[in-house]
Parts: sequence; C-alpha cells; structure tokens
Amino acid sequence: MVDVESRATHDDHLSVRVWLRLLSCTNIVERRVAARLREEFATTLPRFDFLSQLERAPAGLRMTEISKRMMVTGGNITAIAHQLIGEGLITRTPAPGDRRASIVRLTRAGRRGFAEMARRHEDWMIAMFDGLDERERTQLYTLLAKLKRRLGAVTSDEREP
Amino acid sequence: MVDVESRATHDDHLSVRVWLRLLSCTNIVERRVAARLREEFATTLPRFDFLSQLERAPAGLRMTEISKRMMVTGGNITAIAHQLIGEGLITRTPAPGDRRASIVRLTRAGRRGFAEMARRHEDWMIAMFDGLDERERTQLYTLLAKLKRRLGAVTSDEREP
Repeated sequence: MVDVESRATHDDHLSVRVWLRLLSCTNIVERRVAARLREEFATTLPRFDFLSQLERAPAGLRMTEISKRMMVTGGNITAIAHQLIGEGLITRTPAPGDRRASIVRLTRAGRRGFAEMARRHEDWMIAMFDGLDERERTQLYTLLAKLKRRLGAVTSDEREP
Repeated sequence: MVDVESRATHDDHLSVRVWLRLLSCTNIVERRVAARLREEFATTLPRFDFLSQLERAPAGLRMTEISKRMMVTGGNITAIAHQLIGEGLITRTPAPGDRRASIVRLTRAGRRGFAEMARRHEDWMIAMFDGLDERERTQLYTLLAKLKRRLGAVTSDEREP
C-alpha cells in the first residue's frame, strides 16, 4: 500500500499534516497487527477486538453494547458472534428481563485464547513503539491526551454525543 | 460510540496505552470528518479520499493505483468511480498501450468541487487540533515522524513491503 501521507504537501496547514501523519501511523500499525493476527492466530482484527471488549466485561455484554465499543470497522458483529460461538469461545444467553436481547460472554476457552493473543499483541506493540524511548512515549501519550481532551472525547464508559 | 480507550488498563504496557490512545484519537477525528462531509457535502470519507488521490495526480491514475493509495477503508472503489463519473466529477479513459486498464482523472467540476471540500477539511483540522499550540503540534509531528521511521514506513510513492 502506498503511504497515505504522500498526500500532504508543504502548502497544507500544520494541523492537516499532523492529522495525515497520525492517520498514516495508525494505518501502518493496524495493518501490521491484522497481518500478525492472521499469521499467528488465523484470526482477524474485528474478532480480536470483539473478544477484547468481552474480556473487559466479565458479566458479559449485549450485542448492541459490543457494537458500540468496537474500535475497528469492517467486521459484521452478528457473523463474528456466530463464528465465535461455533468455536466455543463465547456463549450467548437471553438477557434477564428482556427476551429480545441476549448477553454474550467469554467461555473459559475464550478467555484463555484471548489472553494468549493479548500477550502477543503487547509484544508487537512494544516492538513497534521501541523507536521512541520512555520519555518520548510519555510525551506522545501526553500530547495525545491533550488532543483528545480538546476533541471533547468522552472517557471510560460514556458514549460520544 | 463508546471510547475505545476504555479498554486500556494500568496493567498494560505504556506502548499498548499509547497505541490505544493513538487509535482512539484517529477514530474520533475520522468520525467527525465523516459526519461533516455528510452534512456539508452529502458525501463520504471514501469518496473524499478517492478525489483527493486524483487531485494530487493531474495526469490521472489507474484504478489499481487509486486502490493502493486510498487511506480509508470501507469504500468499494469501482462503485465510487461509477458514482463520480455519473456526477461528472471524474472521467475514465483507456490507458495508452494497455487496453485492459483505464485511467481516471478529475474533471474541471471535480477539481473545483474537491477544492471546496479540501478548504473545509483544513478548517476542521485547524479547529480539531487547536487544543495543541504550535510548539506542541510540531512536537507531535516530530514524535510521529520518529515512530513512523521506526515502523519502517516507506515514504512518498513507494509501496509498503
């Protein structure tokens, strides 16, 4: 894939150039993670994302909630759930008090499988970000926090307006 | 949409947290741009991306080349091209010396239409990044450059291995 940042010219405002570089870095890391997940675990980024949302919600989540939390696009949530149920990684049970809704949870196998992937995911991240030293990573983290705050991003479990 | 970064916990390695914050910021900006493009221009991010690739290639591009340069996912290149031709924003002509390929170019109306969107896009970016002052934006730009270099990202027109 051609580097997306090639679009930026000197005429562009610094903010546009920062944005294209941000997008470019995100794309590169995302593509690498997707490739590694495929090679090492024969899985996809949306499946990994789906499991990671459940891993953080031991009581389970409604499908609508998972859909809101997903951070990568391109996956059909219903199809992913069917696959993961078929592989014994998650279960789906009726939501108490709401017959139309169902709650999805990791199985023991799902939790174990995800933990293995998460460990490798951390290794990949450490390797990919090791061009920055500790101080620079912290600096980047802080600058992004400031950017995010200004973007008015909500934190934790709130939804974006 | 729930903030994707809620996934990060204190146990995670700093690199994982930086990555999730990077992804989170990118997602927020991307969603905002998509919403603005819809509201102000009744268009989509993949269509904007498609036109912006052509805007930087006055001699036109082959469809395969556009596909490689696209920086957002979720758009069907062929369908987008058909729409844009129908709206008179691009033309498609046979590639000289290769009957099977075709070259896509912006029309005058396409160039004018894109210029208008690009101006607004720049306004949005300036507003979204104004939580950082000039020095911080430059710092962020520099840190991302270092990250990108280390990621082994290719620059300008080369392809990623």
